[in-house]
Amino acid sequence: MRSPVMQCIGIPGIPLIQPGDDLASLIAQAIQDVGETLQEGDVVVVAQKVVSKAEGRWVHLGSVVPGPDAVVLARAADKDPRLVELILREANEVLRVRPGVIVVEHRLGFVCANAGIDHSNVAGDEEQVLLLPVDPDATARRLRAMWQQWFGVHRLAVIINDSHGRAWRMGTVGVAIGVAGLRPLSDRRGTSDLFGRPLQVTVIGTADELAAAASAVMGQAAEAIPVVIVRGATYDAGEGSLADLLRPRELDLFR
Amino acid sequence: MRSPVMQCIGIPGIPLIQPGDDLASLIAQAIQDVGETLQEGDVVVVAQKVVSKAEGRWVHLGSVVPGPDAVVLARAADKDPRLVELILREANEVLRVRPGVIVVEHRLGFVCANAGIDHSNVAGDEEQVLLLPVDPDATARRLRAMWQQWFGVHRLAVIINDSHGRAWRMGTVGVAIGVAGLRPLSDRRGTSDLFGRPLQVTVIGTADELAAAASAVMGQAAEAIPVVIVRGATYDAGEGSLADLLRPRELDLFR
Repeated sequence: MRSPVMQCIGIPGIPLIQPGDDLASLIAQAIQDVGETLQEGDVVVVAQKVVSKAEGRWVHLGSVVPGPDAVVLARAADKDPRLVELILREANEVLRVRPGVIVVEHRLGFVCANAGIDHSNVAGDEEQVLLLPVDPDATARRLRAMWQQWFGVHRLAVIINDSHGRAWRMGTVGVAIGVAGLRPLSDRRGTSDLFGRPLQVTVIGTADELAAAASAVMGQAAEAIPVVIVRGATYDAGEGSLADLLRPRELDLFR
Repeated sequence: MRSPVMQCIGIPGIPLIQPGDDLASLIAQAIQDVGETLQEGDVVVVAQKVVSKAEGRWVHLGSVVPGPDAVVLARAADKDPRLVELILREANEVLRVRPGVIVVEHRLGFVCANAGIDHSNVAGDEEQVLLLPVDPDATARRLRAMWQQWFGVHRLAVIINDSHGRAWRMGTVGVAIGVAGLRPLSDRRGTSDLFGRPLQVTVIGTADELAAAASAVMGQAAEAIPVVIVRGATYDAGEGSLADLLRPRELDLFR
């Protein structure tokens, strides 16, 4: 049996992204500038931060007037009430609060800390914060279509990733917040193991595993390496979206 | 800037593991048989299943007498009371129960479904189940020491991984349940971003990201590809253990 090899190729050289920038072209150019290209079956993982920047998702805290809910919550969370106001606007629901962290269901459907609002590494101005992308699935689809043309490839997948904290375990890991061209879950129910018995652990979070692999390459340098080509991964091509990765509330034992 | 590349090289050809097998030698041999070797900085990720098999962690359900707690819980979980008895013996605490799943804090300290007891892909006998390894950190340290000698490398890390379900998200992902030779968390607190501001999301679950990357290569074929060499990853070498990855109970908002 041949050794399967999955390569995660970090793409440096992407300029600091400005609102309105053509992200697809800038990334395609950077891929070519390092002597790379996209091949059939590649998965391109893009850090949410550059997507948000291209979308101009900046908010200046000076422009935010906190409502009464934000003022109360800010006290419990020991946070800037204007930031809390933005967190509430970006959230469907607040799940937990303790000093330093407000865990919410984001309007995009996933659970994360502080609605994913980024305060670091995003601009020279302390008062500027960056919201998550408007619709990461749509962005992934758009990037995919552009790159299919640009590089002349058909079987291509795109993942927008972000770093999330977790219940029970320390440290953030990369997860997918937008996908295109792949089924995020590899459902092996109905298949058998080596002994012909139905497989038990049968639904694999493939998109999240690939998002985590890319995140390991982006590392703390997500600003310097915001794009990773994952080559040689096994995944199910097809339609898919973030929604596939979200546990329905009624099946979630940890809300 | 050079493109950073992380390679995940799956190692096939490892025989079905029997209790008492010398796992370190069998894996080393398989690495050589595919024309590979271990290099400075490599991280070897080993699926827990082969560790458990080498340790002979089989239990025949016919030998298990369920206690009264197991009988009650089995009814709520719609599971075999003998299996539930084993889950309870392997658990520090039961966190949640619903039909088909018992979420526990495992005696090793992490939270997982059904105490990680594996029923599929492990033997021809429906009544045989496989418990998790006794002490995955110790196994990782032992494998690391053996392979440092065998391959003449110094900077080497070993991760034992498993596939875990998660709160909030669908699909399992690979996580580390034992480590040696690396710090599982990359703590960047105190460092600055590109603009000189302190980094916010600063503790990265590096070992879990590498475990997930390897898991993507093992895929559903963890029986066929139970070992993955991760080459070119950025991590902090040093002492580390599973305990570093476990969120202290008093800081966990989702117990």
